[in-house]
Amino acid sequence: MLIESLQNLTFRNILKLQDKKFRLQNDVFLVEGKKQVDEISKDWNIKQIIVSKDFEDIKNFKDSIILSKHLFTNLSSTKSPQGIIAIVEKKHYKIKNLIHGHGIFIVLENIQDPGNLGTIIRSSDAFGVKAVFVSKESADIYSHKTLRATMGSLFHLPVVDNIDIKDLLDLMKKEKIVVFAASLNSKKYLNKVQFPPKSAFIIGNEAKGIKNETAALANTLFQISMPGKAESLNAAVAASIIMYELSKKTAKKNISEEN
Amino acid sequence: MLIESLQNLTFRNILKLQDKKFRLQNDVFLVEGKKQVDEISKDWNIKQIIVSKDFEDIKNFKDSIILSKHLFTNLSSTKSPQGIIAIVEKKHYKIKNLIHGHGIFIVLENIQDPGNLGTIIRSSDAFGVKAVFVSKESADIYSHKTLRATMGSLFHLPVVDNIDIKDLLDLMKKEKIVVFAASLNSKKYLNKVQFPPKSAFIIGNEAKGIKNETAALANTLFQISMPGKAESLNAAVAASIIMYELSKKTAKKNISEEN
Repeated sequence: MLIESLQNLTFRNILKLQDKKFRLQNDVFLVEGKKQVDEISKDWNIKQIIVSKDFEDIKNFKDSIILSKHLFTNLSSTKSPQGIIAIVEKKHYKIKNLIHGHGIFIVLENIQDPGNLGTIIRSSDAFGVKAVFVSKESADIYSHKTLRATMGSLFHLPVVDNIDIKDLLDLMKKEKIVVFAASLNSKKYLNKVQFPPKSAFIIGNEAKGIKNETAALANTLFQISMPGKAESLNAAVAASIIMYELSKKTAKKNISEEN
Repeated sequence: MLIESLQNLTFRNILKLQDKKFRLQNDVFLVEGKKQVDEISKDWNIKQIIVSKDFEDIKNFKDSIILSKHLFTNLSSTKSPQGIIAIVEKKHYKIKNLIHGHGIFIVLENIQDPGNLGTIIRSSDAFGVKAVFVSKESADIYSHKTLRATMGSLFHLPVVDNIDIKDLLDLMKKEKIVVFAASLNSKKYLNKVQFPPKSAFIIGNEAKGIKNETAALANTLFQISMPGKAESLNAAVAASIIMYELSKKTAKKNISEEN
């Protein structure tokens, strides 16, 4: 179907999806760009693909909604649109199922930069984290900037947003998950920490770190030793170093269990 | 000195510094924002401080150039200006002096994202790297976005831009520095690599990694083991994990040397 008029009802309904409220109501998010749409794995439900009339690969999208270049530019969230957008249905996870059994979990409290948020999701995917939980006040996991930084990793592991940290930690403790938090106030260092097979890591806000009330709920606080002058690390860097260290220790443990 | 007219000659000269060419000619860069100006360490030459008439802390800047709010907004590179900008003289380092003696060096090839560039400089500072070398085609180390991501670390260690990688590696080899490069094609893993006390690490472009001709010049290629699904890590994350691993091993070595 080719649409060329700004007044077309289908187009006007699609255009409403630029509004976050409308996306929430419809339980969908937008994935824009060729590479990013390619990364959507098959277990996700793509409700609609929208392409621009001048999209390079248009022959494969004859059955999609095709917009005139002018209309597509109206819809696009980027300066130089690549000509393809997918409307994707959100996934809903049962937290209790996710945290049952062995695994490493990442908990993000008030991460404000979408680049950091996406990068942490990408590293979580790289280091085999079981699920990422994102607090209510954090940046939007479905924003264009976050999605771009994830490099497709949002489609590889469960990422749950809108989390109440206290409620989550209560559930985790019932499941005997040991909760760690990175804090510059701790005198314990990452490389000395022993990680049980059920561990969760809380990473706090870029400027303020974790809240005092959240630190109080953690079983162990630690920090990453830094011999240099900088006072702290970027939040995505800190989170990724923790996951790296952890995945190394887990790998070693598996090897010694095999022997 | 209070300036209120757009036609004022001093103001017009300052305004020219928005242009990168003019900054190069004058061998200066601009540092904007209260926190960032505070971070400039004393061994850097601040040529001029410029404040807005409504700057909160104006009483301490009576001898600076004071601009009307309107003029300051014209000069500022941010949407919500904090009212203070410093014009800082660039530092020039002799590469030969920097790479003489023990130390860890970071070499960045074609890093395009200013956030990544700044984050790598911040981590280099945190993990005690001796100097960072930034290739010609990389993002600008003095841009507002890069400086913001460094969190002041540019003022803590030598960061040299406009580097020709081949020339640098030639010099490094003469100094017996062992050159490592992170590459997804290597079968050697970071945690198995032995680092001599004079080591350099090349980090490549976000999308393409290091160039083949650069990889050919490295003594050893390695990669970071990733048990999960993501194909790669963010460049700043990869660089920071390498530095973390290295600073741990160096710390251990120092302890055993003391015993």
